[in-house]
Amino acid sequence: MPVIILVKPQLGENIGFAARAMANFGLTDLRLVAPRDGWPSDKARAAAAGAAFVVDQATVYPSVADAIGELNFVLAATARPREMVKTVLSPESAADELRRRGKRAERIGILFGPERSGLDNDTIALADAILTAPVNPEFASLSLPQAVLLFGYEWLKAGPAALPLGRATSCDGPATEGISFARTRPARRAELLALFAHLEAELDRAGFLYPAEKRPSMVRAIRNMFHRMAATEQDVRTWRGIVASLSGRPPGRGGKLS
Amino acid sequence: MPVIILVKPQLGENIGFAARAMANFGLTDLRLVAPRDGWPSDKARAAAAGAAFVVDQATVYPSVADAIGELNFVLAATARPREMVKTVLSPESAADELRRRGKRAERIGILFGPERSGLDNDTIALADAILTAPVNPEFASLSLPQAVLLFGYEWLKAGPAALPLGRATSCDGPATEGISFARTRPARRAELLALFAHLEAELDRAGFLYPAEKRPSMVRAIRNMFHRMAATEQDVRTWRGIVASLSGRPPGRGGKLS
Repeated sequence: MPVIILVKPQLGENIGFAARAMANFGLTDLRLVAPRDGWPSDKARAAAAGAAFVVDQATVYPSVADAIGELNFVLAATARPREMVKTVLSPESAADELRRRGKRAERIGILFGPERSGLDNDTIALADAILTAPVNPEFASLSLPQAVLLFGYEWLKAGPAALPLGRATSCDGPATEGISFARTRPARRAELLALFAHLEAELDRAGFLYPAEKRPSMVRAIRNMFHRMAATEQDVRTWRGIVASLSGRPPGRGGKLS
Repeated sequence: MPVIILVKPQLGENIGFAARAMANFGLTDLRLVAPRDGWPSDKARAAAAGAAFVVDQATVYPSVADAIGELNFVLAATARPREMVKTVLSPESAADELRRRGKRAERIGILFGPERSGLDNDTIALADAILTAPVNPEFASLSLPQAVLLFGYEWLKAGPAALPLGRATSCDGPATEGISFARTRPARRAELLALFAHLEAELDRAGFLYPAEKRPSMVRAIRNMFHRMAATEQDVRTWRGIVASLSGRPPGRGGKLS
């Protein structure tokens, strides 16, 4: 699991917000290099909300070199590549790269700089590569916790764990997202056809499907709406109830499609 | 470009942080529904930092229905799918979907709820689909600005502009697929809301939405079916005709949502 290293963070609040961002994506190893306002910090704990445990476990180091000593691979998060010849990774590619290295049991970490100035060139030079998020070139102003959040998000997305949502990493992977069916199931076709028969019979009776030459296209349009709706068994029962209720006539048994 | 709609946001700071998150990804259209501490807000301006222009341009509405009136497609950001039958999209798929709809000149928006409680079920039922970010199931606690940030990030990544970084936009084929709209257009939200008012008034009259304690969930279920249907302007007119025809009463003008 990647270590998140905040270098000379200025505001306790931002340390807390960063911890909260981390916890959302299963990251818990937070290191601080010389936090400006000292440590521990009540403001950090308060801002972390439910992620105070990440703040409480955080370890403090006097220098970047100390904080990254036992790591194998280190990224430096910075708004834009400085005048250095260095690999640049997006959060997405960084997450993939770190997952690969994690499988080889490498210890990995990411450096984030102070709010006002970001990482200085000397610190960036200690890292293997640069991590930069794609942002609007006319307004590039990610806050420190926001930068941590984007990396954590991509890290979780790139993970092997079954994500409740989100596209699988390969294009043809299982589609875990889609419609949540709560406590029902998709309607069977026969149920849908019985609804069509019921609705169309009532609409014929009410004179809605008129004139006759337009009836086929009107019926098709109405049926297509139900198909697009991806009706559940419960939905079909609701619609039968609606039709019966509005027409003032209980639904007949069966019914025949015209 | 998607509209970001904050429903009853509590803290001015969070409105500002959300604005800053938006600006990083080129989003500038911010709408507020009944902000708790009033508007304008000095705290929002201050927290937005360089993105104060987004805060200054924000528009305020008394209700969600007013804020989404002219939109064609609306997402509801919520931590987890409630007990509703509704399409669920990750930020990544939502960004793809909204890009596709944007190309068809649809007006699109995303609802984000109050910090403490999130969106209520009645508001979620006004949206076409749910937006949920994949997070650690053991600590799912995205803040309001963090949720806005993740969507904005995926929105920019999915964009046509050559991204300096990041994987190619998508692997699911040409963006021309989807629903073919023949000679109509997606319904505007105000048209759909008027249909809801009409249908529900007739169902109340017929005694269908009974007993009273079940009415809210029945209404939500019916609205969700129309959202999943992706109704066109023509569809809405058809349904108004169907309701009028079955109930034997011409559609009233306007009508009010309960």
